[in-house]
Amino acid sequence: MAGTVTVPSASVPSTPLLKDELDIVIPTIRNLDFLEMWRPFFQPYHLIIVQDGDPAKTIRVPEGFDYELYNRNDINRILGPKASCISFKDSACRCFGYMVSKKKYVFTIDDDCFVAKDPSGKDINALEQHIKNLLSPSTPFFFNTLYDPYREGADFVRGYPFSLREGAKTAVSHGLWLNIPDYDAPTQMVKPRERNTRYVDAVMTVPKGTLFPMCGMNLAFDRELIGPAMYFGLMGDGQPIGRYDDMWAGWCMKVICDHLSLGVKTGLPYIWHSKASNPFVNLKKEYKGIFWQEEIIPFFQKATIPKECDTVQKCYLSLAEQVKAELGKVDPYFVKLADAMVTWIEAWDELNPSAAAVENGKAK
Amino acid sequence: MAGTVTVPSASVPSTPLLKDELDIVIPTIRNLDFLEMWRPFFQPYHLIIVQDGDPAKTIRVPEGFDYELYNRNDINRILGPKASCISFKDSACRCFGYMVSKKKYVFTIDDDCFVAKDPSGKDINALEQHIKNLLSPSTPFFFNTLYDPYREGADFVRGYPFSLREGAKTAVSHGLWLNIPDYDAPTQMVKPRERNTRYVDAVMTVPKGTLFPMCGMNLAFDRELIGPAMYFGLMGDGQPIGRYDDMWAGWCMKVICDHLSLGVKTGLPYIWHSKASNPFVNLKKEYKGIFWQEEIIPFFQKATIPKECDTVQKCYLSLAEQVKAELGKVDPYFVKLADAMVTWIEAWDELNPSAAAVENGKAK
Repeated sequence: MAGTVTVPSASVPSTPLLKDELDIVIPTIRNLDFLEMWRPFFQPYHLIIVQDGDPAKTIRVPEGFDYELYNRNDINRILGPKASCISFKDSACRCFGYMVSKKKYVFTIDDDCFVAKDPSGKDINALEQHIKNLLSPSTPFFFNTLYDPYREGADFVRGYPFSLREGAKTAVSHGLWLNIPDYDAPTQMVKPRERNTRYVDAVMTVPKGTLFPMCGMNLAFDRELIGPAMYFGLMGDGQPIGRYDDMWAGWCMKVICDHLSLGVKTGLPYIWHSKASNPFVNLKKEYKGIFWQEEIIPFFQKATIPKECDTVQKCYLSLAEQVKAELGKVDPYFVKLADAMVTWIEAWDELNPSAAAVENGKAK
Repeated sequence: MAGTVTVPSASVPSTPLLKDELDIVIPTIRNLDFLEMWRPFFQPYHLIIVQDGDPAKTIRVPEGFDYELYNRNDINRILGPKASCISFKDSACRCFGYMVSKKKYVFTIDDDCFVAKDPSGKDINALEQHIKNLLSPSTPFFFNTLYDPYREGADFVRGYPFSLREGAKTAVSHGLWLNIPDYDAPTQMVKPRERNTRYVDAVMTVPKGTLFPMCGMNLAFDRELIGPAMYFGLMGDGQPIGRYDDMWAGWCMKVICDHLSLGVKTGLPYIWHSKASNPFVNLKKEYKGIFWQEEIIPFFQKATIPKECDTVQKCYLSLAEQVKAELGKVDPYFVKLADAMVTWIEAWDELNPSAAAVENGKAK
């Protein structure tokens, strides 16, 4: 671990939510100047920076942030041979940060994401909204037409069964993006000028049994509830695809949340996504994924996890097995990915021994 | 049929959408002064007014609207013994209007619903938004995080399978309410002052396999695609419940839409719901439904329609059979309701012979 810095938080607003229970995970290859804009909101929290690419490079972190930083050498040293499950030269490497965090909650954000404004012109504290999302229940079992019934000024509408009004624990909060929308390369190419200007003032639960495209740009989750399912797969250097890391995690995570009756929310908060990535580079990274997703999504739509899987780890290992058996037929890449999924769980349990022990105790 | 009036529409904006293909169905017991506020938007369209309660009463309709009006005597005369399937002293009677319409589309609205304003202060043309919702596809098979991908300025996000981007035909558009939210009696009692002030600028598809509470206050649908499933059940006079008419239709309709791969949208447009109904009266109407829905919803969540049911009518009759067999055990009311569902289909086919013939031809 390189460069742990702790600073007093004198300049920071009072009582930030979950200050000692949440880590902010940032994958990056550049100086983190984008943090300046986030200072009022992020400074009270601990950052875990996962440096991608050349480990010899020095990443500048603005003064006053409390952080730990890991480069590839750190990852290799900490995980040994199991480091093979962590992607290189792809923002998928961020999931290493989830693994080394010791906190209950994680918020992850890309370094090209800035503070957005709400329609009244006020800066949006994205992290605060994620925390609100995570700390209030979800409603995966029945749809509420007035969106999140736990928000102020809202409730369950007529016809919503009373037995379901306690909701489910929320495992994941998926935030959105103003300005540059999260489009694939073909859509970027066809609509180079499209900007997302629509502020939709809603948080909603993705219903049970429904898959969605989870984007890793602006995402928070409860590590204790779902952490081991948040593996971002094998992408980038030496792999046949990129830009499917968060999608992969989202599909796996959602199937497991559905099995364990956990909730997933999407909607607020928005961040300001500043710059579209190069669509030609993206197309190269994506094109196999564009074919494969036509088979991957039906696979996940049909996947069922055996009843006896009562921990995220067991669910995830069951999924890994199914990936190997079913998607292995689509391409040998998925055999490698399934093996990496197993390695990921082994590494997770090694770095999180107490959680693993609790899980094992629970399983008996 | 009493009181058909046709007037020239000189004072009306040019080229209203689907002018000759859509009927507006309004159930009422009072003079329709609320139409004054809707005049700029509704006047080009034909209205079907279903007068509930005392048929001797005269309902005043503002000058200049083109309408036909049916009271209970008309319903009894037109349907004969089959009139038993149409509720009395309950807004469920509105579904008679769906049956006698000869148009492809229906919009139905309550007479305590007024024109709402969008956040910029502009009057919302609810009907126009419903038509836009119905004329663009739905996305029931996969969730799009940026909401309706067919709206201007939006699209499918990264990770959305290309094979699903044509979407499904939209059968139903469910609009929402500003001011008085559509709460059940217990929630009304607990939160007498709650008002919905949140304008959520979104239209979304209710995913396949997900049920939702459909409210009949502000609702549009494609009669050709789903009309026969829009039966509002037996409510009100002589029945043990009320205020579950639209819920019942919504559950049946959604199961059938899922079976036939049709889409259901919810969100925009908003109307201004002016006055909360009396929560004590509502509780009396609802209380059996509040118990029953705990069994009805799991029933509909599990209900499957046999593959060979390839028309809405066949699907609906299959559901009626299942209602009798399964929910009949909950209360004898559901046996009666199941019979009424069959009567409804018979009456529908009688009044819509060419559609029935098409359906029968298709079935061969």
